[in-house]
Amino acid sequence: MQQRVVLAIDIGGTKLAVGVVDGEGRVLDYRRAPNPNPPTGDGESVLQSLFALIDELGVERSELLGIGVGCGGPMLWPSGEVSPLNIPTWRGFPLRARLTEAFDLPVHIHNDAICVAVAEHWRGAGMGVDNVLGMVVSTGVGGGLILGGRLVNGASGNAGHIGHAIVHEFEPLCRCGAIGCLEAIASGPNISAWAYAEGWREGFPREQRTGQDLVEDARRGDRIALAAMRRAGRALGIGIATATVLCDLEVVAIGGGLSQAGPLLFDPLEISLRERIGLDYASPVRVVPAGLGQESGLVGAAALVLHPERYWSAD
Amino acid sequence: MQQRVVLAIDIGGTKLAVGVVDGEGRVLDYRRAPNPNPPTGDGESVLQSLFALIDELGVERSELLGIGVGCGGPMLWPSGEVSPLNIPTWRGFPLRARLTEAFDLPVHIHNDAICVAVAEHWRGAGMGVDNVLGMVVSTGVGGGLILGGRLVNGASGNAGHIGHAIVHEFEPLCRCGAIGCLEAIASGPNISAWAYAEGWREGFPREQRTGQDLVEDARRGDRIALAAMRRAGRALGIGIATATVLCDLEVVAIGGGLSQAGPLLFDPLEISLRERIGLDYASPVRVVPAGLGQESGLVGAAALVLHPERYWSAD
Repeated sequence: MQQRVVLAIDIGGTKLAVGVVDGEGRVLDYRRAPNPNPPTGDGESVLQSLFALIDELGVERSELLGIGVGCGGPMLWPSGEVSPLNIPTWRGFPLRARLTEAFDLPVHIHNDAICVAVAEHWRGAGMGVDNVLGMVVSTGVGGGLILGGRLVNGASGNAGHIGHAIVHEFEPLCRCGAIGCLEAIASGPNISAWAYAEGWREGFPREQRTGQDLVEDARRGDRIALAAMRRAGRALGIGIATATVLCDLEVVAIGGGLSQAGPLLFDPLEISLRERIGLDYASPVRVVPAGLGQESGLVGAAALVLHPERYWSAD
Repeated sequence: MQQRVVLAIDIGGTKLAVGVVDGEGRVLDYRRAPNPNPPTGDGESVLQSLFALIDELGVERSELLGIGVGCGGPMLWPSGEVSPLNIPTWRGFPLRARLTEAFDLPVHIHNDAICVAVAEHWRGAGMGVDNVLGMVVSTGVGGGLILGGRLVNGASGNAGHIGHAIVHEFEPLCRCGAIGCLEAIASGPNISAWAYAEGWREGFPREQRTGQDLVEDARRGDRIALAAMRRAGRALGIGIATATVLCDLEVVAIGGGLSQAGPLLFDPLEISLRERIGLDYASPVRVVPAGLGQESGLVGAAALVLHPERYWSAD
C-alpha cells in the first residue's frame, strides 16, 4: 500500500512554494515559483498560479491525507480568510474554503511564522522539548508558541506574535500603530532604515541597503552596521526575556534571513537576555538558530495535518 | 450520599487559611490564622500551625476528594518542595510529600498567584473565557496563564509570572537581579518606595508608608502619590500589552491589594495599554478587576483537584 502524504503550501508576497511531505517530515517533492502578486485585482491570479504549481507536482489526490497551508498574516483563523500584508489583492480572501472546494480534502491553515515554529518543534531545534518559541526575524518579526507540547493558538489564532512585544517605553512607532514594538527595531527593513538614518550607505538606493547588505557590511566591520546589529540583538533579548519568564520557555529557535547573521546578532542578544533574566527557573532557556532551512514552512504546514492533536486544535 | 468536597489550603508569609470547597466553588467552611513564621528553625512550627488549623475545620477524611494547596513561590513543581520568599524556614520544604503522608489523599499544589488565576478562570472575571491572564498586584506582582481553556504550566510550573516581564530598558534593578521588571515598578512596596524617594510621607516609619497608605493619599489628591500610581499603571499597561499580543488574550483579571485602588490604577493602565496595542486581534482584550475576593486562593487551590483536566496536567 502506498504511503499517505500531505500537500504542503507556503505562500509569501514574493514566492509560492508547494511540496509533498511524508509522515517523517521529509519533503519528497517540491516546486517553487514567483508570486505574480499584482497590485490590484480580485486575487484570482495568485490562486491560479498556486493551482498551476500544484499541478506540476503531479501528486494523486488519493495519496493525500490533506492539505497544510502556511500563509502570511493577518488571517481569520481557523476559517482561513487571509489578508496577507504583502499580497494586496487578497483581502479577506477565502483561501481555506477555495482549497477545500478544489480538492475536497481537509485543509489546515495557519500563519507562516506559526508553521515555522511548528516545524522547529516537530523536526528542528525544538524537537523533544515541550516549551518552545519559534521565531522568524526577516521582513517582519513573527513567531509561534508551543507550550506543554502543543501549539498555542490564543483567542484568534495569533498567539506567538513576539514581534509586537513591547521592548522600549517611548519609541519607535511601529507600523501596527503601537509604540516600542520589537519588530519596529529588529526587522530587516527597520534595522537597515535605522542604520541609513545614521549615515550607513548614504545615498544608496533602497534595494542596495537591505538587511542582507547590512549584515555583510557588519561582517566587514562597518561601525554603523555593527551598531545596528547590536541594537537589534538587544531588542530581541528584551522581548525574549519577557516571553521566557511569562511562558516558562526552554528553547527559543530563531530563523529567517537575519538569523543568518550568526554571532553578530546572537551575541548582543544573549548579553541583553541574561541581564533581564533574574529568576532561577528561567535561566536554563537556550536561544538557538532554527534547525531547519527554507523548507521549514512546508514541513510545519504538513504537521498541521499530520499531528492535529498537537498542532491543530480548531474545528 | 454525602457531597464530596476538597480541603483547600492557602499559605502566605503572614497568614494561613484553610477551607472546605464544594464542586461549585463555594467555600463551605473557613479558618484563618497568623503564620507563626519564625525567622529561623526547621519549618515544623509552620506545618504544625497548619495542621492545627485543619483540625479546627473538623472535616472528615472520607468526605474529601483531595487537597488543593496554593503557596508562595518559588517551588519545585509538581513535586511541591516549597521555598516561599516570605517563609524563611521553608527552603526546599517537602510540603506536598508531608501533606500526602499525613492525609493519604491526592495533593495538588501550585503557586498562590496561579491559584488566584485559576479561580478567576473557573468562577471569577474570566469565567467562560478561554484565554485569560490572572494577576495579583500586591507585595509582589504574580500571575497565571490560562490558554485554550487550560492552565499553562511551562517547563517548571512557573508560566504566568508577569511580574518579571521587562517594561523598561535601563531600570530599575529588580530583587530578582534583572533590569526593568514590572514588579520592580508596580508592586506595593516598590510603588511606595519610589514615592518616598520623591518626598512622599518624608520621615514616616516604613509601616506608615505601605501601598495601602499610598492609595489612600492618592485618593486625597496627594501629588506624589498620584504620580506613583500613574507610574505603576503605565508599567502594568506595558507588561499587559506584551502578554496580550504574545498570548492572544481575551481577559486580564487583576486582584491583590493594589487592585483596590480602582481608577487610580486602572485608568493610567488602560491609556498605556491602548498606546501599545496596534494589531486588530489584540484590541478586544479587557482588563478588569478580579471577580473574587480574599477567598480566591482557596477556590483556585480546590480547582486543581476538582478539574485536573484543565488545571492539573502534572503527575
